[in-house]
Amino acid sequence: MKFLSIIDKLKIKPMEWVEKEEGPRFRWLDTRLIPWEEVYRETTDYRRVATAIKDMEIRGAPAIGIAAAYGLALAAFYSDTNDVNELFNVLEEAKKVLAATRPTAYNLFWALDRVMRKAREYMSRGVDSVIRAVVEEAKRIHEEDVRQNMEMGRIGSKLIEDGDTVLTHCNTGALATGGYGTALGVIRASVEEGKNIKVIATETRPLLQGARLTVWELVKEGIDATLITDNMVGYVMYKNLVNKVLVGADRITLDGYVANKIGTYMIAVLSSRHRVPFYVVAPSSTFDLSLEGDNIPIEERSPDEVRSILGKITITVPGVKAVNPAFDITPPSLITSIVTERGIITPPYRENIKRVLSQN
Amino acid sequence: MKFLSIIDKLKIKPMEWVEKEEGPRFRWLDTRLIPWEEVYRETTDYRRVATAIKDMEIRGAPAIGIAAAYGLALAAFYSDTNDVNELFNVLEEAKKVLAATRPTAYNLFWALDRVMRKAREYMSRGVDSVIRAVVEEAKRIHEEDVRQNMEMGRIGSKLIEDGDTVLTHCNTGALATGGYGTALGVIRASVEEGKNIKVIATETRPLLQGARLTVWELVKEGIDATLITDNMVGYVMYKNLVNKVLVGADRITLDGYVANKIGTYMIAVLSSRHRVPFYVVAPSSTFDLSLEGDNIPIEERSPDEVRSILGKITITVPGVKAVNPAFDITPPSLITSIVTERGIITPPYRENIKRVLSQN
Repeated sequence: MKFLSIIDKLKIKPMEWVEKEEGPRFRWLDTRLIPWEEVYRETTDYRRVATAIKDMEIRGAPAIGIAAAYGLALAAFYSDTNDVNELFNVLEEAKKVLAATRPTAYNLFWALDRVMRKAREYMSRGVDSVIRAVVEEAKRIHEEDVRQNMEMGRIGSKLIEDGDTVLTHCNTGALATGGYGTALGVIRASVEEGKNIKVIATETRPLLQGARLTVWELVKEGIDATLITDNMVGYVMYKNLVNKVLVGADRITLDGYVANKIGTYMIAVLSSRHRVPFYVVAPSSTFDLSLEGDNIPIEERSPDEVRSILGKITITVPGVKAVNPAFDITPPSLITSIVTERGIITPPYRENIKRVLSQN
Repeated sequence: MKFLSIIDKLKIKPMEWVEKEEGPRFRWLDTRLIPWEEVYRETTDYRRVATAIKDMEIRGAPAIGIAAAYGLALAAFYSDTNDVNELFNVLEEAKKVLAATRPTAYNLFWALDRVMRKAREYMSRGVDSVIRAVVEEAKRIHEEDVRQNMEMGRIGSKLIEDGDTVLTHCNTGALATGGYGTALGVIRASVEEGKNIKVIATETRPLLQGARLTVWELVKEGIDATLITDNMVGYVMYKNLVNKVLVGADRITLDGYVANKIGTYMIAVLSSRHRVPFYVVAPSSTFDLSLEGDNIPIEERSPDEVRSILGKITITVPGVKAVNPAFDITPPSLITSIVTERGIITPPYRENIKRVLSQN
């Protein structure tokens, strides 16, 4: 499979489209079990993909988008019909199920729309053509994501100097994308270029993506990593232990409001006070140009995630109220610049986001 | 025991001096096991008290001070000597052991010094007088702490309005003091006055004092409590869900720098940005007038506390680097006012701390 060569070369493969004689399967690493166990799951059922997204076996905005696209590919391949209208009914139903998993990450809707658009392009050519087109488009989205990650790494690494200590939040690495990373991809690229980089990773409660996933990736790559609890960000900035902040994004509006993992806003406020550059790294598929301001839908997850540690220990009085917004919104005034595969976007964002995203 | 009547009336008794026929004992609630189990420990050995402080069975600056004083009382009572110089050798050794437990909370050193001063006052009267004086002084420190807590509650509650939602960090309640609370004491007093108050409690990683202890106290008292992770503070402020912040302190300098549980500084920065009043509540025994600026000694605890949840689950790659400062320092410019048992101190702190603390 020459087409997926860039994916085949990845050190960490969070997702794969596996061709088998009996038909293709979608295979993914269950990130809920990292760092304790590396367990891969497989399915031919798009509903199982939806569950994997909803339950955060697969998480991270770009990864969610790719998985959803593969979900549609499974729905098409296993639709078991010769009628193109029936195939589209199956696809529309699958799209609905996949879109209802998580409301904030824009890449999910972007990927579903892109695959459906491609399907419609091939509608007149019949069922087999549509199925082939849908599968190829999902694979193309995956491949493009990895290429874009690497391009963002190349572009973003210009912002990172030899000797920097970079603070990052949540997981924005291979396990959040097609396989390389957004913010963590920039760190990866900087290290690959020979720069000496240290990373401070916030643990990222409630689901501990920083402690579990980011540290796991950094240790695997031999990158110097230090873990902190989320409430130590003020301390490390006050002590001048951080030179740069790099975070990912789940959705970015046309005027530069960034929805990202809960805690990002707090880090941005501290960065601003301590004059630490605050960079967001995200592919163009994360931008929702239909929205402006801070009215991005924010997912509220189960309070049990706050009242317990990964469902393993209850840490408080059972049943006490808890809130659990999965994301917060950082206003553009706190963002130094946004790294995309099309280039680095600087303020004023309302002008420059459109301009940079529309260039080739 | 008329003397300790105020302590006898407390709903939650974190510590007690128990008189028994075979000799007195110091008894305390092991806060490491809250909210899962209410286990009381007892000892006649000051070294065991030191271990209880070091391992955080007893924690919170005022509670540490009281426990250390009782430690000296045990050392004196069980010194088993008729020679007053030998008794002082025992007391000096006990003071050394108790002082070496935790470096930040000023109340520890304040209480040890106060008991030793009292002992020296009675030195010329012989062993029995010194022992009686030391035991009585420890009980007086306990009694005074509870009275001061209640006085701070009365004074501080003037800052709290009916309908307020107060955010608090770590535990500053009965379990952090002689039995009523500093910041949580102000909340308790406001509720006792009939005000309708809601509380948002941060979980306070790594040791989860907010989730475990503060929520436990609030639920026990029927006060409306909502638990959040530490990284949600920015979100709740951005959403205007908080009217006031109340925190405790482990040490306050003559110019108003406040050492308190890690994460406090971050909350203060966010409060400042969102114009939410940020109040510190602490008795005069927390003020170290020998220090100014931010050079308060900060305890660095084991990285295992960050790499795990209370020693129960490892949440990251074993052995990865982690830092674990137990406290951070909030500069006076971020503090709206400091509530003490002598009154409310407002800026400029260098002037007003001395003035308010020296008044009767």
